Amino acid sequence: MVKLAILGFGTVGSGVLEVVRTHGPALARRAGTGLEVGYVCDIRDFSARPDAHLFVNNIDPILQDPDVRVVVETIGGLDPAYFYVKSALESGRHVVTSNKELVAERGAELLAVARAHGVCFLFEASVGGGTPVIKPMHECLSANVIQGVWGVVNGTTNFMLTEMERRGVGFDAALKTAQALGYAETRDPSADVDGIDAQRKVAILASLMLGRHIYPADVPARGIRDVTPADLAAARKMGRAVKLVARAVCGEDPLHPAVEVAPMLVPRPGPLADVDGVYNAVMMRCDMLGDVCFTGQGAGRLPTASAVAADAADALRQGTAVHDTLWWAEALPLPAGGSWAGQDAADWYVRLAGGPAPAGAQALGDGAFLVRNQTEQDLRRALAGCTVANWMRLLTE
Amino acid sequence: MVKLAILGFGTVGSGVLEVVRTHGPALARRAGTGLEVGYVCDIRDFSARPDAHLFVNNIDPILQDPDVRVVVETIGGLDPAYFYVKSALESGRHVVTSNKELVAERGAELLAVARAHGVCFLFEASVGGGTPVIKPMHECLSANVIQGVWGVVNGTTNFMLTEMERRGVGFDAALKTAQALGYAETRDPSADVDGIDAQRKVAILASLMLGRHIYPADVPARGIRDVTPADLAAARKMGRAVKLVARAVCGEDPLHPAVEVAPMLVPRPGPLADVDGVYNAVMMRCDMLGDVCFTGQGAGRLPTASAVAADAADALRQGTAVHDTLWWAEALPLPAGGSWAGQDAADWYVRLAGGPAPAGAQALGDGAFLVRNQTEQDLRRALAGCTVANWMRLLTE
Repeated sequence: MVKLAILGFGTVGSGVLEVVRTHGPALARRAGTGLEVGYVCDIRDFSARPDAHLFVNNIDPILQDPDVRVVVETIGGLDPAYFYVKSALESGRHVVTSNKELVAERGAELLAVARAHGVCFLFEASVGGGTPVIKPMHECLSANVIQGVWGVVNGTTNFMLTEMERRGVGFDAALKTAQALGYAETRDPSADVDGIDAQRKVAILASLMLGRHIYPADVPARGIRDVTPADLAAARKMGRAVKLVARAVCGEDPLHPAVEVAPMLVPRPGPLADVDGVYNAVMMRCDMLGDVCFTGQGAGRLPTASAVAADAADALRQGTAVHDTLWWAEALPLPAGGSWAGQDAADWYVRLAGGPAPAGAQALGDGAFLVRNQTEQDLRRALAGCTVANWMRLLTE
Repeated sequence: MVKLAILGFGTVGSGVLEVVRTHGPALARRAGTGLEVGYVCDIRDFSARPDAHLFVNNIDPILQDPDVRVVVETIGGLDPAYFYVKSALESGRHVVTSNKELVAERGAELLAVARAHGVCFLFEASVGGGTPVIKPMHECLSANVIQGVWGVVNGTTNFMLTEMERRGVGFDAALKTAQALGYAETRDPSADVDGIDAQRKVAILASLMLGRHIYPADVPARGIRDVTPADLAAARKMGRAVKLVARAVCGEDPLHPAVEVAPMLVPRPGPLADVDGVYNAVMMRCDMLGDVCFTGQGAGRLPTASAVAADAADALRQGTAVHDTLWWAEALPLPAGGSWAGQDAADWYVRLAGGPAPAGAQALGDGAFLVRNQTEQDLRRALAGCTVANWMRLLTE
């Protein structure tokens, strides 16, 4: 019987305890060994729980127990998660995490530490919640060059856009509903609504695609604060839907990938337009296989915990066989200014609050325009004299 | 440098040769070793090819070469594929196949042979073509009880239904187009249009879900021959689309699963309704994760070959760590008569060619009726006096 240690007894951490308890036999079959939760590390007081004996308030007893083979990190953030994860890997334990900030900021380094110590660092739950994305991309598609990864990866904003669409409400009302339902943070929802969560996730996907570390700070990200019911209505008239899209696409030059997060207009019906509520959809363009799409719940306690638990079983079964070809530490600097060069032409939706319409733009009514076949650079130049309320790329797929 | 041997140089086999040649470095990274195609076994004469030295006309030289570590079977059918695959496994080689008939009829037995000889028997390409389905189901979802698997798994019939829908043509015209484009067999298209291909695939998915062998002969299958433009028009009026659905669902009693192939009415828009042309979509219902959906090209030379090549790399990297928890030989007898007991109530679309409408049925015009909330058994009883032209379940998801 192998022991798991869970670091952080929040939403996902408590879910992992439940999944391991309720699905022990299935996990043991997959892991090739029985497994149980031996420790839960959290600074809060859980002494009133019947399983209080599991709880510790620092990582030391975990690292001193030779029966602990896998450490699950569900604390979130970088401190103390980074230190704990690094210590666990250096002690020869596999580490599994759902912490996208940690993976996006320190993935390459932690993968190298894991490699050096003959253990796994796995993070399926960091993108798409419980929906399989990373393992299929990394293992099933290994006979393909992946030319692009894009999709809806933030369930909170997708829920809000769905609310705005269905009920005709604005951003503020949709945010209130999302907060009331626990989908958005009450104190500071900016990680979701300003695209920071999606920025981290697309940095991870881009790093996996390119094999080199892409830092979130190099990925331009806009959230959905500027999206209005008028934008949604205009999109619908154009046979499209507004989605917060995270996108990493290799052009001709794989050393200059386009990586960004922004609200975009996607074709309806279509795999992204049809993903409503807290669901996620991730598409991958592969040179042999064509396009594939993975859809499922992008967050939630038990869905995310189930992906963490599957990673733990994988680590126990396969050891380091799993992760050797993920990504490496050399950062790939994105074009100057942290901004995507925007070399590829597209059609654009623009809503102006003032200033003249750009030359050649097609009026859509209500201050909105369609600007055809421009690069993002050209568009910015054309809009230099205007007060832009919102602007969105029309995705073709 | 490890050698691969390809058995059968048809569409998929020649695709595997191309994928291994063009994506060698990526596959080597994933496999943890360089790999090349060392043999192609085919009874036809390929002596005019520049790589004629690779070709052999029986498996013996392959089994005698210790550098061959993986045998790829793309012959199709049971004879000689079964004998070749078994010999290769018994000789200690990993085997990878795209042959759904072989996996559906002999999967449990060949998995046991592989297990006994410490090698892998992998078959991602047997369902969904190149789209990842089996590995995500088996590995990523290992912390879930999978309660149902259903979807569109035959690209030929889906292309035909899409043609019928878009062009308003009937079955015969759609079949001619599919044959002209090479999507359907010219001599005998029945494996596709009568649901036999889908029957094999759902037998594989059901076996993976249940962990016990489900034989195709025990899975009732109806194809799309009875689907008319009138049915498609009625479906559209009901906000639905007609799809050939393969379905394996566990009810209360996991020993009495519902496994079947039939045309059904699916909600539009929705993950199955939106899958057009030769694309496939496979949905899985998981107790922790909820519903996930995998969509992509379900056939085609290079897509399928890329899944075969990825399996080969997996086998080389992970060895037997991969497959230990797939399924076992004990067959699970489906309810008597080879027919699904049809315990779950559903709404049904029925088109009559004669006889009285069943009591309580709602007329849809054109001889079609909607019958609400009946089990399949009840429906058959209610229709006993009628000449039924077509009948289809309304899927709720």
